[in-house]
Amino acid sequence: MVAFVTGAAGFIGSNLVDRLLELGDVVIGYDNISSGNRKNLSKALNSPNFRLIEGDLLDSHYLSDSMPEGACVYHLAANADVRHGLDDSRRDLEQNTICTYNVLDICRKRNASKILFSSTGSVYGEAHQFPTPENAEFPIQTSLYGASKLACEGLISAFSEGYGLKALVFRFVSILGPRYSHGHVVDFYNQLMSDSSTLRILGNGKQRKSYLHVKDCIDAILLANQNQTSPFEIYNLGSDEYCEVIDSAGWICEELGFNPRIITSSEDRGWIGDNPFIFLDTQKIRKLGWSNTISIHEGVKATVKYLKAQ
Amino acid sequence: MVAFVTGAAGFIGSNLVDRLLELGDVVIGYDNISSGNRKNLSKALNSPNFRLIEGDLLDSHYLSDSMPEGACVYHLAANADVRHGLDDSRRDLEQNTICTYNVLDICRKRNASKILFSSTGSVYGEAHQFPTPENAEFPIQTSLYGASKLACEGLISAFSEGYGLKALVFRFVSILGPRYSHGHVVDFYNQLMSDSSTLRILGNGKQRKSYLHVKDCIDAILLANQNQTSPFEIYNLGSDEYCEVIDSAGWICEELGFNPRIITSSEDRGWIGDNPFIFLDTQKIRKLGWSNTISIHEGVKATVKYLKAQ
Repeated sequence: MVAFVTGAAGFIGSNLVDRLLELGDVVIGYDNISSGNRKNLSKALNSPNFRLIEGDLLDSHYLSDSMPEGACVYHLAANADVRHGLDDSRRDLEQNTICTYNVLDICRKRNASKILFSSTGSVYGEAHQFPTPENAEFPIQTSLYGASKLACEGLISAFSEGYGLKALVFRFVSILGPRYSHGHVVDFYNQLMSDSSTLRILGNGKQRKSYLHVKDCIDAILLANQNQTSPFEIYNLGSDEYCEVIDSAGWICEELGFNPRIITSSEDRGWIGDNPFIFLDTQKIRKLGWSNTISIHEGVKATVKYLKAQ
Repeated sequence: MVAFVTGAAGFIGSNLVDRLLELGDVVIGYDNISSGNRKNLSKALNSPNFRLIEGDLLDSHYLSDSMPEGACVYHLAANADVRHGLDDSRRDLEQNTICTYNVLDICRKRNASKILFSSTGSVYGEAHQFPTPENAEFPIQTSLYGASKLACEGLISAFSEGYGLKALVFRFVSILGPRYSHGHVVDFYNQLMSDSSTLRILGNGKQRKSYLHVKDCIDAILLANQNQTSPFEIYNLGSDEYCEVIDSAGWICEELGFNPRIITSSEDRGWIGDNPFIFLDTQKIRKLGWSNTISIHEGVKATVKYLKAQ
């Protein structure tokens, strides 16, 4: 089986590539190295079973030439920056929705055996039900990022229904672990490394968020892939717990040995579109025998250790 | 108040233009005359308060030059052909999702007072709840058309949340009435006019569908517009009844005075992505005092009368 991984040089993509190679797959990575990094693939690039293609998903001709017949396509490439979506209103449409359309259309033409897609808990907007199940209430989008990922999910299910493409959609909480590159842990880490006396948190710090370690995330994806029984399936992927942003800040400071003055605002959201509570119902994936093995506390500390080692 | 109507030369758009002119608005229509028709605007084009701009929504520069500051934007332009979506997988993405993004981005830059958007009951995919309320279960898309309209809705709510754009989204059932140009009534009409002995129905004819007359549809849009209390609102628009496709076929034959042999298949769907049951819960718009005044039976007959008069 040939695995075709978009976003292969990214945080989750490169971890997935390493795992697939360990499992004996032949892996083709496709990445434009915009937010990804070749360094993430230093191990993979030494494998005879891996090949990296530097290409853009907006270039559908190049993508078409790059994707082999019958591949299992892991589509992880995305603009994953939720917070700054409003700075450039077109970015999420282009990098997420249009790129996903291109991937789907080439999957169809290249008879891909399956597409596995990294969606997000952000598609629920501000959910009313916690933990939030896959069949929660019809969502209202609060961010361009969430809107773009919902658009991708819609395209995937319509392609699955219309063209018979097998598909798995995974709605992630924020992922932690080695090669982590953006999000609150790196933001806090960078702030503290430039000035360890002060840590500024966006919002009141009481935002409740769930996180998942990348190892547990990949375990879940591979398990769902082995157990697919209907042509289109959606799984929430997240921990069985959540924490407050301020707790996570405390763990980061502890790991770094700093005791900064912490500054918060009175807002219950850190930015427009920030979701004050994310906690996904993961019963569906747990029924397959999966559970997260790394707590949020351990995941945050592991991420800080990774950042320190860079 | 200047009204800016995209898809102004289309079926619903041109009916809306006529009504807005009657109400005293200054109206600018924007249409690329691809599926629309200047003939639909023959009355409007005689009004000093109306101007038609022939332009494409994919041309965002021309759109930007065409939209005045502070307009009330009725965005009705779309590819509305659900059935043939699979023939050209990119069409719905381009004509619906990307065009709607362009409209939104120009609305933001031109400080539009509001955007009103024609969405569809197709965004519910195959609903599990009937009548289907606005906050039904998280939908799974079964057509590229539905997927593209859901993507539009997500963009609109994210723009509303992120940029403060006021927005109303209307999820229509199929609309009937004068200037009707595509759908089962015209398909059946055309079949019968070329051979009145036989009528071929896609599927088993037992598909249950709801329809709404364009006059009632526009009444509802204008009423919701007058009564908007929060920045982003969604309304289902449909009749308080549904019929089977075979019933509608009977009414069409009756109106034409034909008694054809009716051929159905054994399939409960007419095509891939066809929805065997569409019936929307319209309590929300009814609470504002609206109700449909024209039954489906009357609407189908009025549509046939219109087609005969052409």
